[in-house]
Amino acid sequence: MAGVITLLTDFGTQDGYAGAMKGVIHAEHEGARIVDLTHEVAPQDVLGGAFALAQAAPFFPDGTVHVAVVDPGVGSARRAIVARGRGGLFVGPDNGLFTFVADGPAWAIDRVPPEWRIHPTFHGRDLFARVGARLAAGARPEEFSSGTVAPERLKLPEPVRAGEELVGEVIHVDRFGNLITNLSGGEMGEAAVEIGGIQAVRATTYADVERGRLVAYTGSAGYLEVAVRDGSAANLLSAGRGVRVRVKPK
Amino acid sequence: MAGVITLLTDFGTQDGYAGAMKGVIHAEHEGARIVDLTHEVAPQDVLGGAFALAQAAPFFPDGTVHVAVVDPGVGSARRAIVARGRGGLFVGPDNGLFTFVADGPAWAIDRVPPEWRIHPTFHGRDLFARVGARLAAGARPEEFSSGTVAPERLKLPEPVRAGEELVGEVIHVDRFGNLITNLSGGEMGEAAVEIGGIQAVRATTYADVERGRLVAYTGSAGYLEVAVRDGSAANLLSAGRGVRVRVKPK
Amino acid sequence: MAGVITLLTDFGTQDGYAGAMKGVIHAEHEGARIVDLTHEVAPQDVLGGAFALAQAAPFFPDGTVHVAVVDPGVGSARRAIVARGRGGLFVGPDNGLFTFVADGPAWAIDRVPPEWRIHPTFHGRDLFARVGARLAAGARPEEFSSGTVAPERLKLPEPVRAGEELVGEVIHVDRFGNLITNLSGGEMGEAAVEIGGIQAVRATTYADVERGRLVAYTGSAGYLEVAVRDGSAANLLSAGRGVRVRVKPK
Repeated sequence: MAGVITLLTDFGTQDGYAGAMKGVIHAEHEGARIVDLTHEVAPQDVLGGAFALAQAAPFFPDGTVHVAVVDPGVGSARRAIVARGRGGLFVGPDNGLFTFVADGPAWAIDRVPPEWRIHPTFHGRDLFARVGARLAAGARPEEFSSGTVAPERLKLPEPVRAGEELVGEVIHVDRFGNLITNLSGGEMGEAAVEIGGIQAVRATTYADVERGRLVAYTGSAGYLEVAVRDGSAANLLSAGRGVRVRVKPK
Repeated sequence: MAGVITLLTDFGTQDGYAGAMKGVIHAEHEGARIVDLTHEVAPQDVLGGAFALAQAAPFFPDGTVHVAVVDPGVGSARRAIVARGRGGLFVGPDNGLFTFVADGPAWAIDRVPPEWRIHPTFHGRDLFARVGARLAAGARPEEFSSGTVAPERLKLPEPVRAGEELVGEVIHVDRFGNLITNLSGGEMGEAAVEIGGIQAVRATTYADVERGRLVAYTGSAGYLEVAVRDGSAANLLSAGRGVRVRVKPK
Repeated sequence: MAGVITLLTDFGTQDGYAGAMKGVIHAEHEGARIVDLTHEVAPQDVLGGAFALAQAAPFFPDGTVHVAVVDPGVGSARRAIVARGRGGLFVGPDNGLFTFVADGPAWAIDRVPPEWRIHPTFHGRDLFARVGARLAAGARPEEFSSGTVAPERLKLPEPVRAGEELVGEVIHVDRFGNLITNLSGGEMGEAAVEIGGIQAVRATTYADVERGRLVAYTGSAGYLEVAVRDGSAANLLSAGRGVRVRVKPK
């Protein structure tokens, strides 16, 4: 039993919201070791949260509990779940946040002790942190659930075929201005990649191209990414989420 | 003995200041488990720090030590204290930072080992982190103190009665643009809430109102808060700290 | 054996990159206790990272492992090293990041298990986090190395003598707008300090001067710093890295 609990939220850290979740976790499970994944998901950006979770969680050992809260529907009828997936157990709202990590059915969280007072707008603290802490302390998901459900999945834009071209789009921009696309990097082979009218150099890594050149490569998460060596592709191309990326066979 | 030490500062994390405190803590108490509450309190904003601490600290179990440093008076004659309060022990400057959490008298920190070299502008590292680590390792506050004092309290603006109206004000704006007021949420009953000339819908939670509507509810910390569903009340109303909030009985 | 591993990167926390490193560490060393120094080093700012590391790492106890990744040369031929220094062992790229902390020769990391798949642009996760975790679990640096090298050192600007004056410059601006110079604070004695045409008051601490006054003092890291009491020297003087600071004997 690792006792490791990760946290991923869109709460930022300037308020005490993330800290309150940590307090609840330590109150429920004295030996918990809390690991911050991030609290800087853009507010209510479920896709951004799902992406960050997919980059990090699979590297944790089995037995880890990931509590993730990007939850625009808090207070509404959206379900709360515990999902099993790559890197351990996932606790949070059933809104697609676990799209890239969950495997198979999830437990609906619908049986919690009646003495738990749960604030209607702060399930992160009063529900998810508590369930996560108890799971990390050895509880089984079944103790909080009367049955399993199929977790929600985000509908990601699919790349579209247009004649010989495959047209994808930017789905995420990271801190370095790298553009992450919905194209699977492995399938691109040696095809030409074009974005914003500029053709990117295909390379294995940044370091294979000159400074300032646009480069396309398979990123750490397996997606085709477009970057500028020693610069920001997002700035160079004024490109953000939704911008088209064209791939043509050579 | 939990060995859990939380940190709350206005140091940010781009420098090594918060990291230096963590080093001192591990040097003094090898088994410490450090939990970041936040390092993003606005520089020298004692009220903001007090508020964040109040949101988080009370959820920690007894035995937790909270080291909090928002300390515009460092190097001056302001006292250093250990206070007992909701969620454990609190170590930091006696400048009102513990207003919402401290109970009863506090220990003045005025007896530290003569070999401690304390930099005049970095009590966070050289004094508070060290005292906190030793408390977490089992030391008693009396070991650092020759007596108790009444801790300083921030003078918060009080709501004012104006005829039938109760006039409060915004005392904090959180990351989501939610406006936290000095009005106790529980006492508002069904009264009408108006801010910036707009009447807010009373609700238990965001999800009870339409997108874009201004909503007033009792926040996680017990205060009346004003928010916009799926938006920022601070942006919508161009409202920040000090803006008036009017409550009238229906 | 402390099992404490610190992380310092320029990854920010909005992506899952720092979180992925934490996953690898826990997968390699279940009992690891991870301590964030910072993930907010400015992208690819090796000097800024070296400075933050120097402020924090030396306060940690021996036995601590510091994994530091500010790595513009990832994917190129720059070496990977384990250095011994003030505050424990340091793992990361050999690009000068350890200039202020490393003592003596370092181990070149050139022997890793053949089954390690190392992504060409993410040595932080696939190489440094893994080596760091194994060191924290008791491995010796020699297990990853066929020999030692002299670690790279950053060439910092040296203060210049101009007649009676010593002319230094700002090498770092911290979050509070304090200007950290390349002048050793201890050597300044009572000399007059001038920057941007304004003479700074010499003092031991902020609190010795009036609000708004420019003050020069020896900072926590031993360098001469210039600050404004209750304000930002960087804003007041529109000064950043490279701005000259003149010291004249009185």
